[in-house]
Order: sequence, then structure tokens, then C-alpha cells
Amino acid sequence: MSTYSLGIDIGGTTTKFGIVNAKGEILDQDRLPTNQHEVVEDFIEDLYAKLLPMMDKVGGTKQFVGIGMGAPNGNIYSGAIEYAPNLKWKGIIPIAELMQKKFNLPTKLTNDANAAAVGEMMYGCAKEMKHFITITLGTGVGSGIVIDGKIVVGHDGFAGELGHTIIRPGGRRHKSTGMLGSLEAYASATGVRETAIELLTKFPEKESLLRDFSIKELTSETVYDCAIQGDTIANDIFEFTGQILGESLANFIMFSSPEAIVLFGGLTKAGAILLNPTRKHMEANLLPIFQNKVKLLFSELQEADAAILGASALIW
Amino acid sequence: MSTYSLGIDIGGTTTKFGIVNAKGEILDQDRLPTNQHEVVEDFIEDLYAKLLPMMDKVGGTKQFVGIGMGAPNGNIYSGAIEYAPNLKWKGIIPIAELMQKKFNLPTKLTNDANAAAVGEMMYGCAKEMKHFITITLGTGVGSGIVIDGKIVVGHDGFAGELGHTIIRPGGRRHKSTGMLGSLEAYASATGVRETAIELLTKFPEKESLLRDFSIKELTSETVYDCAIQGDTIANDIFEFTGQILGESLANFIMFSSPEAIVLFGGLTKAGAILLNPTRKHMEANLLPIFQNKVKLLFSELQEADAAILGASALIW
Repeated sequence: MSTYSLGIDIGGTTTKFGIVNAKGEILDQDRLPTNQHEVVEDFIEDLYAKLLPMMDKVGGTKQFVGIGMGAPNGNIYSGAIEYAPNLKWKGIIPIAELMQKKFNLPTKLTNDANAAAVGEMMYGCAKEMKHFITITLGTGVGSGIVIDGKIVVGHDGFAGELGHTIIRPGGRRHKSTGMLGSLEAYASATGVRETAIELLTKFPEKESLLRDFSIKELTSETVYDCAIQGDTIANDIFEFTGQILGESLANFIMFSSPEAIVLFGGLTKAGAILLNPTRKHMEANLLPIFQNKVKLLFSELQEADAAILGASALIW
Repeated sequence: MSTYSLGIDIGGTTTKFGIVNAKGEILDQDRLPTNQHEVVEDFIEDLYAKLLPMMDKVGGTKQFVGIGMGAPNGNIYSGAIEYAPNLKWKGIIPIAELMQKKFNLPTKLTNDANAAAVGEMMYGCAKEMKHFITITLGTGVGSGIVIDGKIVVGHDGFAGELGHTIIRPGGRRHKSTGMLGSLEAYASATGVRETAIELLTKFPEKESLLRDFSIKELTSETVYDCAIQGDTIANDIFEFTGQILGESLANFIMFSSPEAIVLFGGLTKAGAILLNPTRKHMEANLLPIFQNKVKLLFSELQEADAAILGASALIW
């Protein structure tokens, strides 16, 4: 009887994968750099070479029900990665089909952020929820939307690109999309860094611990370290980030009326310094019928785990 | 056998109601002023007095499967109108229960905009669609969201308040909610009127046909009449309205990836003068994977009909 599934999370830099049992326990896991492979076939070869011994340890292919994958621009309908801006493989990559042939196992693909939302729903803090939204605050801003217990994929499989919604029309230019004022341009690690540079340049007379760092060292972690030491500009940066994020979350809530919003990813390490302004601006921009109802939570799952678990859950 | 249903659409000013058969034909209809009744019980009495003879004409109550109602802030879970800002009946009004007792017929209630979306799905231009959004551009901006063939009501029944999403943070103050920069403050009949006053005041030197009208006469209809005569300011008003609406629609599309957006309500009489800038700004604010895919349609149903039909369809 098949008792395991493979969960694979393809990120712009790293691909994480693991063997998951029906209880949602990751028995074994490893990783692989994503963008060192010019063509997807080479990537699959390497993945296979790494996974085969792991699979053999638990009894081989016949023990597996299938493979679940999350990837940027992964389309659940077509099983293809379509025009992912952060990957080297351009155009339409029918990766589910290629994996299925290589591993001889049924393979399902979805968007990486949707996979994380599935992980949250099956094993995380959204376990009992039918309506919630996960927002990943990492290098970029990803999102997975659950309505009536189902991931929203929409008419063509691409729903849930909330990081690219516009919250400051005519605002900051997004480096890779060219769009002006999108959520991702502000509420990501990259965005926090840009806000830091903006504020330090705008107020050259204001003292700040951040001025001791080189432009290269000015990361969201540095800003956080300075903020907890009471640095005013560093705190202003998180206040501003929380304002933009909170306003965006208010808009999302008035769309789908979720029970909770689950935040996720590197930026959430800032904890209350990010959460407090986010909550304040979220509530301030909601109609009264939505106020003080929606839970704003941090994911309890390890980021890598959620993505692997979520991807693996696609196949059960 | 029960062969008819009652469809009732409660608006801020007028309540429209009709008898609908299973094919979606309105056999008889009438209307009633909504806000002349201080208490909801009097309203129901008047409604009953008007409906009873209509129902008797087709064979009486026993011919009816039930009553479907749409109302502002109508909650499908509770069957109550909850804190509707535009109605005289304050607080929580358990109208479905009251109607059920009075008419002795099962009664379902939903948000008025959701009822219109149901009408569009069952009898209008979204007949074959599983994913679409209806936007009502009237005195205010209402919305109904359909995902996987179902109206999105969310965790507490209030989903789909897209008119209150913020598209110009810190922008125009909404007269009744007090919120700054919401879609409804711009892309409604009221919003068009405000934009007209703003532009006429901002550019006192610019000639415009609109200057011949009193502030009272300056309605969205007047602006449209002047626009088709080639008036520059009147055209600028629709360009601006379309820009705000288009930017908002782009955000909604990146949320739920619908097949179409169906526009609806008084403002759509402006036709291409509104549709062209809306489409332009919608496409310009979409990620490439969403561009040139989403249909932007005008409803083909009469506004009153869609609401009555949609409400009646709740009960089938």
C-alpha cells in the first residue's frame, strides 16, 4: 500500500523536497539549488538522483502515492510553470508531466504560495478554518486564498497574486514587474530595504544606527536589529511597512471576508514591531461590519516545512 | 405543485418585487418606497397588502416555493439586515424570519449586490461562467463575487464589499463611511458629481458646458450629456472615473482571476465613454499573465429585473 508522498517546493533560489507520511510528518528532507540548471530536464535529473536513495530507504517508488509540487507561477490546471519571472526556465514548462514520466508517479503542481496555504490548512494554524488568506512576506510577497475550504485558483489557475495588487497608485516602481505602487514593492524584505534607503536619504539630519551599515548590509534583518534597540528611523520603517500591509489586508478582507490572515516568511521575524502597525492600519481601513473580527496570525510552521507539507498534500 | 417564487429587492429608496416562474420570467411586478416606513413591521404589512392580490391571481400561496430577498447588508447566514447605513431600520433586523411568519413561506435573504450577481449567473451574460465579478455602479458601488459557480459570502456572510476597498489612500472622504479614497467615493454617480465639482473649481479658466448647470443639476447624466457633445472637462471626468475603476478592477482580477467583470447600474449608461478608459487602466495595472484575458461586459439585464430575478433564484 502507498503510504508516502513527495513534497517539492521550487523557489527562485532553492528547491526543498521531502518525504511525507499521511500524518503530515516529514520523514526525510533535502534541498537543491534551483537556478544552476539551465534546462529543466537537468534539474529533474539532479532531483531524481537525490530523491531515489531517500525513497529507497522507505521501500521504493511503490510505497508512494504520488508527487505534489509548488512552484512560482505553477498552474494547477495545466501542470505547467508558466512564464515565471524568477526562474531560468522561460515560457511554459510542463514540469508535472516531465516529473510523472521520470518518477513514474502521478504528479500535481500548484503555485508555491497556494501550496503553503494548503500546508497551513492541513497542518498549521488554519486547521479548522474554511476561509483564510496566507501572505508570505519574503523576498517578495506571495499569497494563497482559501474560500469554503478550497484554494482559490480562478478561471485560469492564476488567482491569488495579492503581492502585485496596487496599494499606492503611481508609487514605488517594482524592480521586476515595472508596476508602480504594488504591495510587494513595500511589504517584502526588498521593500523594507528600499524604505530604509529612502528614509535615510530623505532625513539626512536624523541620527540612526542604520547609518553605520553599508548599503549592501542594509537588509530587513539589520533594520529589525536597530528597531529593537529603539532606533527611531528603523521603527519608522516598520511603521510604514505595517501601514501599507495593513491597508492592503483591509482591502483583501472586504473582498473575501476571511476568518484569519496568516502571515508567513522572513519578515515575520520582526514580530510585534511589524504586527502592531499592520493591525492598527488594517482595522482603521475596514468598514465597521468587518472590524475586530479577523484574526491576524503568524504561521506556526517552519517556512520550509509548510511548503513541503502543502505540496505533498496536493496528492492525497 | 409550487411553480413560482417571489423575488424582492430592497433598495435604499425603492423596494422592487415580482413573481417569477422557474424559467426566470417575471410575470408580474410592482414597487414600494422603502424608507417611508419607520419600523420594518409596517413595511412588511404594506408589502403583504401589495403582494397578496398578485399572488392570488396565479393561484395563491400554495403555488409558491418561497421568497428570495436582496437587501443592503443582508446576511445569508443570519437572514438579517445588519446595520445597513442607508436604511431607516437600525441594528439587526431579522427580516427573513418576519417575512416567513407573515407569508408562511420559506424565505432566503442575501446582500442586494449578491442577488444581482445570482441573476446575472442564472439569466444574464454570465450564464455559462463559473468565475466572475459583478460591479454595480449606481448611487454607490456594489459587488457580487462568484468563484467556482458560488457567490462568495466569506466567514461571516459579508464578503464582496468591493466598493469600500481603498484605491486612493488618503484620498477623497466618503460621505457616509468617512473612509478616505474608497472606490465608491469616485466610481459612483455621487463620485462623478464630486469629480465634476472638483475639476470645475480647479480649472476656473477652462470653458465647459457644465458651467451652465447649477450645482444641483450637476449629475452624472449631465456630465454624460456634455461629454458626448465633446466637452473637454466632461470627458476628463469620465477618463478619471475610468482610471480609478480600472485600477480597482485590476486588483480584483489579481485576487480571484475571473473570466469576466460584469458592470451594471446607472453609470453604465455612459457606455464607451466610461468603458474605454476603464479597460485601458485595468489592462495597464495587470501582471502580464492576466492581460487581455478578462472580459469587461455591460449587463444585458434591466437593473430592476436582475435584482428581482437574482433574489427569486435564491429559493429554487
